[in-house]
Amino acid sequence: MFQRVTVYLDYLCPFAWRGLELAYVVAPQLALDLEIRHYSLEQGNHPQNAGLPRHAPAWKLSEQPLESSRSLRAFLASHAARQQGKAAHLRFALELFRLHHQDKRELGDDETFVDAVSRAGLDLERFMADLEDEEDRRIELGRDLEEAGELGVFGTPTFVLPSGDAAYFRFTQLTTEPELAVNLWELFTAVLENGAHIETIRRPRR
Amino acid sequence: MFQRVTVYLDYLCPFAWRGLELAYVVAPQLALDLEIRHYSLEQGNHPQNAGLPRHAPAWKLSEQPLESSRSLRAFLASHAARQQGKAAHLRFALELFRLHHQDKRELGDDETFVDAVSRAGLDLERFMADLEDEEDRRIELGRDLEEAGELGVFGTPTFVLPSGDAAYFRFTQLTTEPELAVNLWELFTAVLENGAHIETIRRPRR
Repeated sequence: MFQRVTVYLDYLCPFAWRGLELAYVVAPQLALDLEIRHYSLEQGNHPQNAGLPRHAPAWKLSEQPLESSRSLRAFLASHAARQQGKAAHLRFALELFRLHHQDKRELGDDETFVDAVSRAGLDLERFMADLEDEEDRRIELGRDLEEAGELGVFGTPTFVLPSGDAAYFRFTQLTTEPELAVNLWELFTAVLENGAHIETIRRPRR
Repeated sequence: MFQRVTVYLDYLCPFAWRGLELAYVVAPQLALDLEIRHYSLEQGNHPQNAGLPRHAPAWKLSEQPLESSRSLRAFLASHAARQQGKAAHLRFALELFRLHHQDKRELGDDETFVDAVSRAGLDLERFMADLEDEEDRRIELGRDLEEAGELGVFGTPTFVLPSGDAAYFRFTQLTTEPELAVNLWELFTAVLENGAHIETIRRPRR
């Protein structure tokens, strides 16, 4: 029986990239059913949303013009990929992260999307058609960002475990060797499941 | 061979109280040499320090008048207790935390200090004399807060491990049963020592 794990991502974020690589490696080993949702750093940190509750932002990314945002097109592309199923969506997300954070490609360019689609083995024609259905993709994105707001997500990656426990999980070293990855994941879940109800572990920065 | 663990505390903070209770239980079991330092939430969150680097505050608690602060007298009392040795200091800190957070006593009152001194088995006369040497205690406090600033401490409790790894550690359930306490401590240290270099695990708040 697979157990649902939801991960909130922003393609801008290198920690979200590492988090998804980790989850992608451990999911088959631990029988996790991994599902992607989106959280927007641009929206979360926007000056017009300062002081407002996370579930009631004044500035909503999904309603902004495409050219005003570094991340909006990537989110819409992610929702276009999602139309081809959960597994295709995951592979696309990983490839888009790698293209941007490893290969330093522009996040919002059509060329980058086309390469991600190709590497992930998606149907390009269908992807482009779904990306052109911009209003539908914006509605889906808006729904994701609302869900993230309800949950109080403040950064990426944030994982929601089958238990309902959720946390932001930030680490700096890419960890994809299967045994190390499982150890790291189990350490993370042990923190969330400990009876002391750990809320935060965070290193100071000098 | 004992291994030095430093904990940065603010008596105002219930998480610092639980953190010290935890460390106090595990220290003898794990041969830790536990040492108290101070970090001030009032100073860290003061509007006059907003935007300034933590090591260069404009508003310094150790230079404020006694009556303007909720925590200053408790810090000075802590430094007075410290004159009676590290073990006495630890016991005093624990008792002061318990009086304030369990018994809801006023933090900065002489009566509360006298009860903490008595419960912790310190020499009261010496304690009062050391507390009256206010300028010396302020200098010591100022030095602690400078060290905390250099380290980038932003909240309490923050623990510094023998490895040099440091982190804020916030949990809500008091954990003093010896086996559970050791499990919790080892989980915390495993997070800091993992090769992925975990920087943050933090639950969202709705």
